[in-house]
Amino acid sequence: MSTAWTSRYAQRTKGMKSSAIRELLKITQRPEVISFAGGLPAPDVFPTTRFQEACQTVLQQYPEQALQYGATEGFEPLREMIARHTARYGVKAKVENVLITSGSQQALDLIGKLLINSGDRVLVEAPTYLGALQAFNIYGAEYLSVPSDEDGLRTDLLEGPLRSGPKFMYVLPNFQNPGGTTLSEGRRHELVLMADRYGVPIVEDDPYGQLRYEGEHLPSLVVLDRENLRRDQGYSIGNVIYLSTFSKTVAPGIRLGWIIAPPDVIAKMIQLKQGMDLHTSTFTQAVAYEVAKDGFLDEHVKLIRRVYGERRDVMLAAHPKGGLFLWVTLPAGVDAKKLFEAALKLNVAFVPGDPFYAGNGFSEEGSRHLRLNFSNAKPDQIREGIRRLAIAVKQQMEAVSPAIGSRL
Amino acid sequence: MSTAWTSRYAQRTKGMKSSAIRELLKITQRPEVISFAGGLPAPDVFPTTRFQEACQTVLQQYPEQALQYGATEGFEPLREMIARHTARYGVKAKVENVLITSGSQQALDLIGKLLINSGDRVLVEAPTYLGALQAFNIYGAEYLSVPSDEDGLRTDLLEGPLRSGPKFMYVLPNFQNPGGTTLSEGRRHELVLMADRYGVPIVEDDPYGQLRYEGEHLPSLVVLDRENLRRDQGYSIGNVIYLSTFSKTVAPGIRLGWIIAPPDVIAKMIQLKQGMDLHTSTFTQAVAYEVAKDGFLDEHVKLIRRVYGERRDVMLAAHPKGGLFLWVTLPAGVDAKKLFEAALKLNVAFVPGDPFYAGNGFSEEGSRHLRLNFSNAKPDQIREGIRRLAIAVKQQMEAVSPAIGSRL
Repeated sequence: MSTAWTSRYAQRTKGMKSSAIRELLKITQRPEVISFAGGLPAPDVFPTTRFQEACQTVLQQYPEQALQYGATEGFEPLREMIARHTARYGVKAKVENVLITSGSQQALDLIGKLLINSGDRVLVEAPTYLGALQAFNIYGAEYLSVPSDEDGLRTDLLEGPLRSGPKFMYVLPNFQNPGGTTLSEGRRHELVLMADRYGVPIVEDDPYGQLRYEGEHLPSLVVLDRENLRRDQGYSIGNVIYLSTFSKTVAPGIRLGWIIAPPDVIAKMIQLKQGMDLHTSTFTQAVAYEVAKDGFLDEHVKLIRRVYGERRDVMLAAHPKGGLFLWVTLPAGVDAKKLFEAALKLNVAFVPGDPFYAGNGFSEEGSRHLRLNFSNAKPDQIREGIRRLAIAVKQQMEAVSPAIGSRL
Repeated sequence: MSTAWTSRYAQRTKGMKSSAIRELLKITQRPEVISFAGGLPAPDVFPTTRFQEACQTVLQQYPEQALQYGATEGFEPLREMIARHTARYGVKAKVENVLITSGSQQALDLIGKLLINSGDRVLVEAPTYLGALQAFNIYGAEYLSVPSDEDGLRTDLLEGPLRSGPKFMYVLPNFQNPGGTTLSEGRRHELVLMADRYGVPIVEDDPYGQLRYEGEHLPSLVVLDRENLRRDQGYSIGNVIYLSTFSKTVAPGIRLGWIIAPPDVIAKMIQLKQGMDLHTSTFTQAVAYEVAKDGFLDEHVKLIRRVYGERRDVMLAAHPKGGLFLWVTLPAGVDAKKLFEAALKLNVAFVPGDPFYAGNGFSEEGSRHLRLNFSNAKPDQIREGIRRLAIAVKQQMEAVSPAIGSRL
């Protein structure tokens, strides 16, 4: 059924299709399904008791502030906490470098709104986070895709795409979604130097940086950024915009993320955000501040690391060092989308690889991959889910080539 | 100081200037200022105790749902409650007609994103809500402004602008911000008929409809809409998109609004919203549901009406029948912006009329008006603030014409 409105939709909505994430989130809500599909954090590690205390503190001590309109840039104590926390990792951020967003997804929308004219090219990893593609698509972005391997984005293939003048590059250096790969330290240095040489700024998306289960933390691009290094003090995080979120370390349902950027970028984004939602909920910001403060978040992140590390070990195969996902390459002849249908009949869900590739150039790659989440299901469910998935893969292989299938 | 990013801002940001609302909100935070500037609800009527109980209920009974990712369209029990509540006013809305937004401001951004191509004209009242102008400007909207009088939008001047083919019209029929006027019942019928005749759909923004201090509730445009009337049952709210919010009835700090629209419009908006912030905070939605349910909201709105009605009476002059604002016409020769500067020296703030007029055609009108909020300050503060404002007006009149000034 169409209405008076249908013929009036703006040009930018024409190519828009219902998102793979969205459809998948619906499937994962059916209780009988063991879902490896979403990037859902484990609800059993949500700090519920701490939340209760935080709500009481906020509503007893400063309800008139927490329930009122607030500043677009965010709740000041929370911004200060994030600046301090970021400084520990070597980013010389001050409060004026921090903008609170309604989750990282809003940060991606803000970046699209601020930077992308229709037809502008964005350099992305292949595969990359599909939520970013969704956010950028609506502003008419086109893409330059650079492949990744086990050390992350292949910097040896970067020069050509950089020469062709992308507006910016969008990278996830830590435990990339969906690839699970981490950009090696050598490549981080290379990436930052090349970005500087070709004058192409970097958007660094880091939702998983704190979820490292083994090995040493690697320096963020924003820290390595030459312009940052050149300065003695302060906030001029020159060539890199850095994004992070509480979705994986506190809870996603509060929708809180943040942007660290030079003050002139933050000022422009504040103007844009005001027209988008005035400001992010003062109440959730205040509650998150009360939850995280006095070192609680650090302790809680340790717990999450331990729990997710165990679950990764249960699903283990490709062994990413952090994050929430395994990125699986299928045996030859097995198509990810057909496998998805077969698996769903066995009540197990995952995300086929296709939507993580920008544009149409890599769809063959997409059909050879799938993304499995290991944070949401409990260890016993992971075992059972993987058993069912193996059955589905076997069925698919037999359909393609009975001889191969029977050897599984 | 500019950075690598400055030269890369998208075309759409070029004309953007720092908003009047934003700058004013900063001034109003100074404790010595009696502010008639913002549209801030009174913090002393926030239902704080009810919020405490609601947080406990949510975090004890369903924390795993409330802190987790949720569906883009919103928390189901809240959508159902809003559909039922809307139905009481004659809108045959079902749950699939309801989309939860991060405040009404996000609804306005969604409408801009869905409907406005650069250069499209939007028919608006003069003056109109400046947050809507901000949201639409970024998508390149141009405006057809139609004047208002004490009965709201002048429908006798509507035909010309409608003939010239606006994409849609944006109207606030109840206790308009800033005008304080309410569209008369006769004009409501006319407006809906004319919109239907010229095929121009309506966006009806109704943040204040429930804040009526006297007189009878008038039917919403969405109820009068012919296409709606023609159908026996259901959800096809043909020619009108209806917006409302909890900001004035529960609390603005939770950032919760909603859109009522035909299902095909809602479906498209869900796709857009997913790229914008995935979904509005599940936690605040759940808390708002627990606050509002079992008739609490109805009782609370009665309290708000009584408190704000009293405050309006204290400020009384133009006597709007509801809402939060007085729209004041200044004596000849007094300029609203100069008065603003003079008033601020006396620690009293308001919003000069200028930013509420779309485009540049009405700036002379703007300089003759100012908007006073009466919900936020307490009765004694209103008396003192108005006394100071009278001093500032007198100063301005003496500066223009000593003879007139001395007669005040």
